[in-house]
Amino acid sequence: MKRVELTPGKWRGLQILSDEEGKFRMMAIDQRGSLKKALAKALSIPQDEVKDEDVVKTKIMITKVLSPYASAVLTDPVYGFPYTMEYIPRDVGILLAYEKTGYEKAQGGRKTSLLPDWSGEKIKRAGANAIKLLLYYRPDGDPEVGEYQREIVRKVGEEAKKYDIPFLLEPVGYEIEEPGKDSLEYAQQKPKIVIETVREFTKEEYGIDVLKLEFPADLKYTEEFAHGEFDGKEREPAYDLYEVEDICEELNDTATIPWVLLSAGVDIEEFLINVEIATAHGASGFLAGRAIWKDAVPFYPDLDKMEKWLSTEGVDNFVRLYKASEEAVPYYKHKKFGNFANIDLKDRGVDWHKNY
Amino acid sequence: MKRVELTPGKWRGLQILSDEEGKFRMMAIDQRGSLKKALAKALSIPQDEVKDEDVVKTKIMITKVLSPYASAVLTDPVYGFPYTMEYIPRDVGILLAYEKTGYEKAQGGRKTSLLPDWSGEKIKRAGANAIKLLLYYRPDGDPEVGEYQREIVRKVGEEAKKYDIPFLLEPVGYEIEEPGKDSLEYAQQKPKIVIETVREFTKEEYGIDVLKLEFPADLKYTEEFAHGEFDGKEREPAYDLYEVEDICEELNDTATIPWVLLSAGVDIEEFLINVEIATAHGASGFLAGRAIWKDAVPFYPDLDKMEKWLSTEGVDNFVRLYKASEEAVPYYKHKKFGNFANIDLKDRGVDWHKNY
Repeated sequence: MKRVELTPGKWRGLQILSDEEGKFRMMAIDQRGSLKKALAKALSIPQDEVKDEDVVKTKIMITKVLSPYASAVLTDPVYGFPYTMEYIPRDVGILLAYEKTGYEKAQGGRKTSLLPDWSGEKIKRAGANAIKLLLYYRPDGDPEVGEYQREIVRKVGEEAKKYDIPFLLEPVGYEIEEPGKDSLEYAQQKPKIVIETVREFTKEEYGIDVLKLEFPADLKYTEEFAHGEFDGKEREPAYDLYEVEDICEELNDTATIPWVLLSAGVDIEEFLINVEIATAHGASGFLAGRAIWKDAVPFYPDLDKMEKWLSTEGVDNFVRLYKASEEAVPYYKHKKFGNFANIDLKDRGVDWHKNY
Repeated sequence: MKRVELTPGKWRGLQILSDEEGKFRMMAIDQRGSLKKALAKALSIPQDEVKDEDVVKTKIMITKVLSPYASAVLTDPVYGFPYTMEYIPRDVGILLAYEKTGYEKAQGGRKTSLLPDWSGEKIKRAGANAIKLLLYYRPDGDPEVGEYQREIVRKVGEEAKKYDIPFLLEPVGYEIEEPGKDSLEYAQQKPKIVIETVREFTKEEYGIDVLKLEFPADLKYTEEFAHGEFDGKEREPAYDLYEVEDICEELNDTATIPWVLLSAGVDIEEFLINVEIATAHGASGFLAGRAIWKDAVPFYPDLDKMEKWLSTEGVDNFVRLYKASEEAVPYYKHKKFGNFANIDLKDRGVDWHKNY
């Protein structure tokens, strides 16, 4: 196998984002809109009455208690990083979100914006180990919206290359014609949406280092779990678990770069199965947020109760995720690299410092 | 006490360079000239016949075996980093040297050059956690040479600020009128040379975050150790250990920023005492090279023997250094900061990302 070259910032970044086994056991606490929504519910107030302070306090508490268990923590530069950076241990990597929360509706699709006055340069300068971009994407959606979205990815990919920092893309599908994501129609579409999205962004031109992906099927629509096993609601099945495994396998065959699983707000029991199946079929770990800590939010503003829940149930969720991801593929064993010894520093040599 | 503000790159950098206690237990393997000299001796050849490969192999071996024991590793961008970066564990910080090896003689003094085609920008981009600059300096030397040297420090300080990365300065004294560093005259001068150097570079205008200092006296010239205790050579004493402790205390009173001790090629037994005295009087740890690993070099080119020595005696040296530095002052407890809770992120707030 031909040796694969990496620049030092990208390589070191991958080493730091993953744990000592090269597996990504990462926590996301970069939620903005969805966290405000959950806090509004906890406080029984409208979402626009949730104060910045409420979001900040929640993020501090979650980061403080749980980040020591993660190989890296993804946070946001508004309510997260500037308040929580000192609670992230020295041996836990940091990913910073580049996008503005939410999206703009356009031609039945969703357009992403980068956060104004924020940049890849600032992310690198601040000491983070990766740029993360959440991107709404439908490979079968409006072509103009698709190109708009891909152009943002290219731009961020170039910045990541310029500042020599890993780029993690989180493409998220959404409903266009379908009645919603929790529908038989969407469950049927989902494998294709996820896999075709991977086929696009796995291309070298985007400069992505790790893909953060939705589970490419919906367990609630499997024959095995369609009878309300997770939430008590009966659904019509779209596939069975064997088919879901094949879908994961196809996703993995399509991905030419390492990929990890996002939790998208599903409950921990469902997410554990997602992780087990995905990592058994080539995923390199997870970058999970709400599945780990969402049940702490309803305790807000009682910070003591939050802390108690996080340091017991929250930690337990993390421990279970480590177990569920035992088979995760170390990033350096992903087919992109083959094995650790097959990776080489780009321009290695005594003149490296001149050419870098 | 007024809160002290840090930018995120600097703060995170200090966290990563120091260990979980906030103490610096760092290893230097950035030697170029002095390592070539030692390899020439090991190979019984003239120094200019030592090959790049010999230096590289030695650095790989030392880095591989010993870096897991360090909180951070200082290496060089020529024979070190491009060959050893993948052997530095994810939880061990990296410092990169900025200077060209050696110096230029000028008006009885020594002028430092920065390594051509190398920069603070590249150091940050490559994923390092600090810029290190070795600077020959005599506070009482030729004024023109002094200003030349200080100007380099200012320039590097500005770069470190621009790229938001810690700046560690290593000022090293040298003989002008004295017959050599191993002389009664130099031993008598040394406290003043080190302390006056600290007085200069502790000034805010230089933007230095950590000083890497010579022990401000010479134990071989103390009444207690002047009778050949370290190397069998009898010397005339310049001071006793009580006076040496006072000298360290004075140094520490002068330093308004954290400082660590360098080993300057002394043997481990002497260095352990240096570290014990310095850390008992305010030093925040060590950044030591040859004292830890120099006895492995004579085994070259027998890499097996080198590895065996490093993984037994070398590791033992490290372990003893941890013990000798037990009283080291965590960087955040240095009087510059007071305590951890007294440090604040510069411009902390939901608009931080805009203003950063």
